[in-house]
Amino acid sequence: MDALLSRTKNAQKKLLKLSGEERNELLRRINKALKDEKNKKLILEANLIDISNAKENGISPVMVDRLTLTDSKLDKLADSVLDIVNLPDYIGEVIEEWNTPTGLNVKKVRVPFGTIAVVFESRPNVAVDITALTLKTANACVLKGGKEAINTNKALVKAMKNAISDLTDPDVITLIETTYRSATNELITKKEYIDLLIPRGSKRLIDFITQNAKVPYIETGAGNCSLYIHKDADIEKAVKVAVNAKIQRPSVCNAIENIVVDKEIANKFLPKLMEAFNGNNEFGKKIEVRGDSLVNSIIDSKPATDEDYYTEYNDYIVAIKTVDNIDSAIEFINEHSTKHSESIITEDVSAVEKFFNEIDSACVYHNASTRFTDGGEFGFGAEIGISTTKLHARGPMGLREITTYKYVINGKNGEVRK
Amino acid sequence: MDALLSRTKNAQKKLLKLSGEERNELLRRINKALKDEKNKKLILEANLIDISNAKENGISPVMVDRLTLTDSKLDKLADSVLDIVNLPDYIGEVIEEWNTPTGLNVKKVRVPFGTIAVVFESRPNVAVDITALTLKTANACVLKGGKEAINTNKALVKAMKNAISDLTDPDVITLIETTYRSATNELITKKEYIDLLIPRGSKRLIDFITQNAKVPYIETGAGNCSLYIHKDADIEKAVKVAVNAKIQRPSVCNAIENIVVDKEIANKFLPKLMEAFNGNNEFGKKIEVRGDSLVNSIIDSKPATDEDYYTEYNDYIVAIKTVDNIDSAIEFINEHSTKHSESIITEDVSAVEKFFNEIDSACVYHNASTRFTDGGEFGFGAEIGISTTKLHARGPMGLREITTYKYVINGKNGEVRK
Repeated sequence: MDALLSRTKNAQKKLLKLSGEERNELLRRINKALKDEKNKKLILEANLIDISNAKENGISPVMVDRLTLTDSKLDKLADSVLDIVNLPDYIGEVIEEWNTPTGLNVKKVRVPFGTIAVVFESRPNVAVDITALTLKTANACVLKGGKEAINTNKALVKAMKNAISDLTDPDVITLIETTYRSATNELITKKEYIDLLIPRGSKRLIDFITQNAKVPYIETGAGNCSLYIHKDADIEKAVKVAVNAKIQRPSVCNAIENIVVDKEIANKFLPKLMEAFNGNNEFGKKIEVRGDSLVNSIIDSKPATDEDYYTEYNDYIVAIKTVDNIDSAIEFINEHSTKHSESIITEDVSAVEKFFNEIDSACVYHNASTRFTDGGEFGFGAEIGISTTKLHARGPMGLREITTYKYVINGKNGEVRK
Repeated sequence: MDALLSRTKNAQKKLLKLSGEERNELLRRINKALKDEKNKKLILEANLIDISNAKENGISPVMVDRLTLTDSKLDKLADSVLDIVNLPDYIGEVIEEWNTPTGLNVKKVRVPFGTIAVVFESRPNVAVDITALTLKTANACVLKGGKEAINTNKALVKAMKNAISDLTDPDVITLIETTYRSATNELITKKEYIDLLIPRGSKRLIDFITQNAKVPYIETGAGNCSLYIHKDADIEKAVKVAVNAKIQRPSVCNAIENIVVDKEIANKFLPKLMEAFNGNNEFGKKIEVRGDSLVNSIIDSKPATDEDYYTEYNDYIVAIKTVDNIDSAIEFINEHSTKHSESIITEDVSAVEKFFNEIDSACVYHNASTRFTDGGEFGFGAEIGISTTKLHARGPMGLREITTYKYVINGKNGEVRK
């Protein structure tokens, strides 16, 4: 492991010598390689092995679907690399500049982290996405995928490494081929080689990282999001947002899991909501509702436990809680939330201000769906993950969020400190 | 511990409701309290107990000196709180703002972290500095000082808490009064209460934190800094900067520990350097030189081990290494450095560019002393520490570096994602 990571670290130093245009050329080569018929054949064959193994191991159809690459999926993946070429080059950007009274010129300059490790599960597109985003920003990447996708990941990485090998050191892309969990255990302690670790996957994976990592990391993706229907909500907007945030794509982290409702408006709002959640919605889906006793008394629903309010269902289930006022709502949300995204529906601007100020989450919304928390929707052009920590980056992370800075200080005459 | 930290967390929420001017008033009250004769008497009496205990326990005179407060030191400390009042209020600042094609207005707004814990050693001024910086930025603080200063810290915190208790919840300032190391062990795992941990102290303390913390932290202060004398250096500037960076204040993290010299210029530079290091300098101090065999052959010096080049002496000792060229110099520095501050002395601009690009440290200098790496010198008006990590903040950390951001998103009509 040390030898492998040391090669990656050295390769990254060579990336520093390439211009932004030269780094874009690496991405264009990767795009071409993923569209090359021979490579495609090898990648899809490897993917078939993974799919067959997955089915043999009784992996759920949803997971098999995530694992599956097709010719057209591969084409899309290749095209997404070209999209990243067209994004700005942030490396070298002078973020701030000033002169000191002591005669120095100080520049705060945007630079790459160095080596970024990403531990991810099943979806093989992550290997390509991460490679493109890190090379664009002059970072090297260390990829540790799940064992379900190991053959696909190997084939993808081999094609990408070959594609860039005459332009730079191909070890800027490093795949950890050992699929044992122990390889992850080792990787996340290698402080001398890894500058940043980003876990992408299940809550179990992320909890494991936060308990065991010795390298700097950013937690991503846990999304127990809430929608709060304030007493002065427009009911129509409330139902529209609830349907979108719960039903449009329940498996993602920015979908809502809880709805918090002011008691004062519960009698008006809940029956309208239930009408939509009973299948009368544009998606034709029914939602299972769990709620407190007031909710149970107004609409047909099951009793909710406190555990329910902490749960990220990622499914057609919602937990509803009624509260006395906005203070109770904020307290409830801050207690149960994973600090991802929360939304308030109200026509009262002072309630909005209070909610924005006191809710401790990466993204806070007014009269809009939490589903917008996304690098693409935010206009970042790319997304490396959605941070739920407060250190370094919060919410959707694009290219700038996988950079750091250094201070570059120019003296003239050998300036010294008094 | 949980009950204590929970009170701090709740108190911080009340800070969010104060305006910047109201938070400044907290600092003015603290300034007054530290100038109040009764409080001063209590603080200085408590400090005398700590000093007497320290002497009994055979603590070194340097450490006793760091621990000692006097009437005039206390006045200066109180004045430094007023300096922070005059700095800008960054909380609520809109860092970026844009409208999306989907009809949303997105603002990236600067907000406090929440609760910041600082683990520090001996110097009691840290308790006051950290309190002022965190309250200014609407953060609560949890202070864990060393056992040598426990009585002083208790007296300082008591005076500060009393000073603000009729304006806000005094639990925004929390001192961990248990002096056992086990209290630190517990504190650094309390993810549900601590949003950011900053260790300030010895390398041993910082290593302990990085090995055991489960809360997000920023490493500070380890400073194994190098000065590189390039073949095209102006010898006069080189000697001037070496003397300042090594001798002016050797105990601090931004002093140099290593000098790297191009072999081509060693015969010209080293004798001039030695003249100054032999006591012919404005500080009248002699420096012990350790060097490789070429250094030993040119000037009177001891042999250096590789261990020497990794060592932060914080003393009147320097290790000198000769190299073939700038590539070897950069490789040597990146290997031995703690990524704090490094300086190149040269008249060749292309060498500067290469050094700035390839040296992986928070601050890189040209023809200037590394001693400028300091929040005050950078014009930040305050300093909470000097980061040697790449995540979130690098180099001197001022007020902005103890803030984070959130995205505040306004819809109009219940915007939903397509």
